[in-house]
Amino acid sequence: MLIVMKTDATESDIAEVERLITEMGFRPHTMPGASRTAIGITGNQGPVDVMPFESLPGVAEAIRVTKPYKLVSLDLRPEKTVVRVGDAEIGGDELAIIAGPCAVESREQLFEIAEAVRRSGARFFRGGAFKPRTSPYAFQGLGEEGLKLLAEVREAFNLKIVTEALDESGVDLVERYGDVIQIGARNMQNFSLLRRAGRSHLPVLLKRGLSAMLDEWLLAAEYVMAEGNYNVIMCERGVRTFAQHTRNTLDLAAIPAVRRISHLPVLVDPSHGTGKNYMVTPLARAGVAVGADGLIVEIHNHPERALSDGAQALTLEQYEQLVSEVRAIHDVIAPAPVS
Amino acid sequence: MLIVMKTDATESDIAEVERLITEMGFRPHTMPGASRTAIGITGNQGPVDVMPFESLPGVAEAIRVTKPYKLVSLDLRPEKTVVRVGDAEIGGDELAIIAGPCAVESREQLFEIAEAVRRSGARFFRGGAFKPRTSPYAFQGLGEEGLKLLAEVREAFNLKIVTEALDESGVDLVERYGDVIQIGARNMQNFSLLRRAGRSHLPVLLKRGLSAMLDEWLLAAEYVMAEGNYNVIMCERGVRTFAQHTRNTLDLAAIPAVRRISHLPVLVDPSHGTGKNYMVTPLARAGVAVGADGLIVEIHNHPERALSDGAQALTLEQYEQLVSEVRAIHDVIAPAPVS
Amino acid sequence: MLIVMKTDATESDIAEVERLITEMGFRPHTMPGASRTAIGITGNQGPVDVMPFESLPGVAEAIRVTKPYKLVSLDLRPEKTVVRVGDAEIGGDELAIIAGPCAVESREQLFEIAEAVRRSGARFFRGGAFKPRTSPYAFQGLGEEGLKLLAEVREAFNLKIVTEALDESGVDLVERYGDVIQIGARNMQNFSLLRRAGRSHLPVLLKRGLSAMLDEWLLAAEYVMAEGNYNVIMCERGVRTFAQHTRNTLDLAAIPAVRRISHLPVLVDPSHGTGKNYMVTPLARAGVAVGADGLIVEIHNHPERALSDGAQALTLEQYEQLVSEVRAIHDVIAPAPVS
Amino acid sequence: MLIVMKTDATESDIAEVERLITEMGFRPHTMPGASRTAIGITGNQGPVDVMPFESLPGVAEAIRVTKPYKLVSLDLRPEKTVVRVGDAEIGGDELAIIAGPCAVESREQLFEIAEAVRRSGARFFRGGAFKPRTSPYAFQGLGEEGLKLLAEVREAFNLKIVTEALDESGVDLVERYGDVIQIGARNMQNFSLLRRAGRSHLPVLLKRGLSAMLDEWLLAAEYVMAEGNYNVIMCERGVRTFAQHTRNTLDLAAIPAVRRISHLPVLVDPSHGTGKNYMVTPLARAGVAVGADGLIVEIHNHPERALSDGAQALTLEQYEQLVSEVRAIHDVIAPAPVS
Repeated sequence: MLIVMKTDATESDIAEVERLITEMGFRPHTMPGASRTAIGITGNQGPVDVMPFESLPGVAEAIRVTKPYKLVSLDLRPEKTVVRVGDAEIGGDELAIIAGPCAVESREQLFEIAEAVRRSGARFFRGGAFKPRTSPYAFQGLGEEGLKLLAEVREAFNLKIVTEALDESGVDLVERYGDVIQIGARNMQNFSLLRRAGRSHLPVLLKRGLSAMLDEWLLAAEYVMAEGNYNVIMCERGVRTFAQHTRNTLDLAAIPAVRRISHLPVLVDPSHGTGKNYMVTPLARAGVAVGADGLIVEIHNHPERALSDGAQALTLEQYEQLVSEVRAIHDVIAPAPVS
Repeated sequence: MLIVMKTDATESDIAEVERLITEMGFRPHTMPGASRTAIGITGNQGPVDVMPFESLPGVAEAIRVTKPYKLVSLDLRPEKTVVRVGDAEIGGDELAIIAGPCAVESREQLFEIAEAVRRSGARFFRGGAFKPRTSPYAFQGLGEEGLKLLAEVREAFNLKIVTEALDESGVDLVERYGDVIQIGARNMQNFSLLRRAGRSHLPVLLKRGLSAMLDEWLLAAEYVMAEGNYNVIMCERGVRTFAQHTRNTLDLAAIPAVRRISHLPVLVDPSHGTGKNYMVTPLARAGVAVGADGLIVEIHNHPERALSDGAQALTLEQYEQLVSEVRAIHDVIAPAPVS
Repeated sequence: MLIVMKTDATESDIAEVERLITEMGFRPHTMPGASRTAIGITGNQGPVDVMPFESLPGVAEAIRVTKPYKLVSLDLRPEKTVVRVGDAEIGGDELAIIAGPCAVESREQLFEIAEAVRRSGARFFRGGAFKPRTSPYAFQGLGEEGLKLLAEVREAFNLKIVTEALDESGVDLVERYGDVIQIGARNMQNFSLLRRAGRSHLPVLLKRGLSAMLDEWLLAAEYVMAEGNYNVIMCERGVRTFAQHTRNTLDLAAIPAVRRISHLPVLVDPSHGTGKNYMVTPLARAGVAVGADGLIVEIHNHPERALSDGAQALTLEQYEQLVSEVRAIHDVIAPAPVS
Repeated sequence: MLIVMKTDATESDIAEVERLITEMGFRPHTMPGASRTAIGITGNQGPVDVMPFESLPGVAEAIRVTKPYKLVSLDLRPEKTVVRVGDAEIGGDELAIIAGPCAVESREQLFEIAEAVRRSGARFFRGGAFKPRTSPYAFQGLGEEGLKLLAEVREAFNLKIVTEALDESGVDLVERYGDVIQIGARNMQNFSLLRRAGRSHLPVLLKRGLSAMLDEWLLAAEYVMAEGNYNVIMCERGVRTFAQHTRNTLDLAAIPAVRRISHLPVLVDPSHGTGKNYMVTPLARAGVAVGADGLIVEIHNHPERALSDGAQALTLEQYEQLVSEVRAIHDVIAPAPVS
């Protein structure tokens, strides 16, 4: 159920609708938009009676939602969500670029890379302090120490920190040191983690699972939003297929597919999406050309010495070239209708 | 690294090896076997010096492990692990059958189904109290109330309870009310959850992820074992492919594949593996014929009224027929070498 | 459109219906069954007028077919098709076993293997004279010379020859020397080849394509049948997925899935379906347990010297053991309803 | 084996090497390049003796080829192949655009669409006269009549005709009426057809199979080239995966992957690659951005009335917009190094 307010509805009209929803035992999700505000309802079992709403002042219409998702949908918010992170944003006019190493390894490493990221004009820095590794015996990240180093980068370079939380206590830590909570592909359907991220004040970058259907991915975002956190950023990072010339198969059609259904911004991760250094830049160009709101890219000052995923990390020079190429493409397609 | 003891090594020989490993700052994992005991070592970064071990009394040889997994491997334990759950077992001579509803719905439902399970001679009862649902708006299970009902079933029917934990606090609860902790397909690489289960005294039933490679699945088991819990049961439940005549594609070749590498028992889940009632029994037969140690099957007294997964649940009559068919096949293949 | 005749319809009633169909410019496909004859109609664009048929003597009813396939369907023939090949058959009570080498290499090789096949009680011999090889530089088979050797095997051992045709001229040759035309996975949608096979008097063994959906496979059989050749044998041989522990992922659920829709017999190929010697026998057991009508298995007197696919070929001893195991399972499940 | 000639090798030096290869019973494949000529050798079983070549005048070196492919490889021709089709080309500086309807339906349809194609500046017209249809009962194309209509388009608009051949006799017909032989995805491993196309004087557009590995696709091109036809154009058209938001999953990483190994030009087919009208233009942009040499796009004057694949056909207006967008991207990336 979705209550669409009239263009001229007042704050108190909206508050009244919210109050009624709460009284019914449900939860209101208010989404102000450019031309009108809509209010999603969750917590109901079965259909909600529309009658009481239709007579309230300021209500334009009450719409039954037949799709499995409610809050991620364009029905609720017809214009794209712009996620604000301090003075930076994702989903706006500017191409968002998140760059940094796979794993936090040392202050020296971080600062050298961060210098290149700042120089490129990107606003976001990535780096994992908790690494989800296939083997229990592989390097698992520096943990809280790594987060502290990321916080230093934030201070020193005014870059926003995007970093992964593997579990609920990890979210606590990211809230302390970071700016955007990354939920990794393997955790896309870790519903307890999604709910915890949904109760955070930080935006959530939600990677697509390795074999996630479109609906499953959108519903994972819905889990976060249903808890009240509406700042979700989708990220296509490749899916698992029979193909072996790449580590994953980057499914760029997912970008227009999400866009057709949802107001959430969508990024592309050409690093995990290919797993091969020489493919990252071409696929980054393709990601921007297809209409993504930005990129998340792994770079390293010494890829050959990286503690994880060195094969896909760009050198700082390659990264600089990538930024220049994708900006040129963004400039060309930005004025055009996005799809 | 793996220390193989001589056949006639004494308890104190073994203790001495364990002590040395601990002194080195590593962790010993002692696996007694039919003909010899082997001791796995974890916690090392890089190779361990073999010299000190080779001179200890009772040590037959020290073996370098070059595969990514150590504790799950036949190198460590050449004979199959038999997981004991009270007076029942999985991996022994008898075919293990776990049956019950997808979700715990009510005492009446559970007791009627449990009656049929006990009558069939199966020793394990399944039922979800915490359900991992794609949508936040779908029925999420009865929670702790559901677990209490399962504990009643245990008392009343002497059936061992197999039930899913979705997060670390869920493991606490399963430890209180259940007998085997199920880790679901979507959580196969939820490493925090795996580690928590690895610190439990209960056996762990580890479902294969929807797009898990063989090594990833074995390494998920390794996460559990590396924490000291050696009672892991693998469960093939179908993987995601292009095929649409089933909900998942049941990959029965995974059973001999696991067996060739690992000592852990392996089950087949023909219910999730097909998602269609009429396919469950044929695929259950196939699972037993391929050499699985048992089955986990969804059954319901009223499939058409099931709160989740009704389309794949067998009726109690169909279940009885299934048990009779798979036992007949097990009798035929059991004397033969399993592959 | 499908005309179902009454149980007591006479030959001349049937002939009258066929005449009317032909007069309309369409093609009748008459399928006699245990309890009644049905006549499929192909060649129509859009719906056929049922009126003229309903008034003919002996007609029970005229049924509109809404599925994409007509002739493969249980609607046309409710009981399973038994494909007769001389004095042998596929789809009847006995388990059909087709065994032989991947490729015909020499008379000595063929005769030594054929001796083992005959000894096992199998009635069919396989061997490729034209090999579809990924590389143009790999061994492509002995061609017509190979077919002549197969014809010698047929004479000497009274085994029916199953051999692949890669193109239309290949069908001409198989008609001269063989008994069953095999259409390989890569040619499952080679529609010109399917049509040519549909005009043959020999039965067609139709392997499932590497990424074929169920409907595509059934419609490939429909291509053959629409030309008038109703002796089609389906064969599941594994599909391509992300999994790498096998060469292909054997999709045994395809067997009950075909059976639910079609009257055509279905075989399982555990050799290509796994690509690994040690998995062939377990998966052969599973294939029989799931309800397949038979198996096609690659065997070799010297697998280590095989010119192609040696890694999956069974030795003659392993094959003997396989036959004994699958017969035991077939004996157990045959009396039971097949699914 | 590969003989690389010195930069200053003469025609007669080359002829001498070719003569020696032929004398040995093998086949020479001479590839002149910008800086040097190389000569591939096929037809050998096992290694070729390099000694006799090394002493010939003009020979720089003899290289053993260890990869499964020879002629498609950059080892043989380091610079990209430009396929010339009359006064048009694929693989050169200009973006190649092939546009037209899925199927030839009528002269009116073709001429209206061709008018739009010519107006857009594209040089190639596509249209199927023989359609590979999943069902034998679906529209199979106009056959030779369709080819005649395409030949009229060629005359009237000076557009090069790209059209599919389904079998060997189809190649004969395309040679009579068309300019480029298309081999469809389902026929990518129809080796008899590939060999026949390899003996044609027309270029071959080789679509990637629905589940083709990179090597399989390259080796299919090798089949064509081994027969002496070196004008092969690769075309990525999407592969089959679990994803259902598109008809196929367009694997754009295949473009840099092919480029890293082969000198052959590569196109992208965003129409079959997505199957959805609204995705075609975004993915066409992505295809150009990733570095493809061109596009093949389905367009229709009345998509809603198309006899096949209407859901993915662009209107003529959408097509015009697409061309303008992809040209803008091509202009931006062309000066940059391609990957």
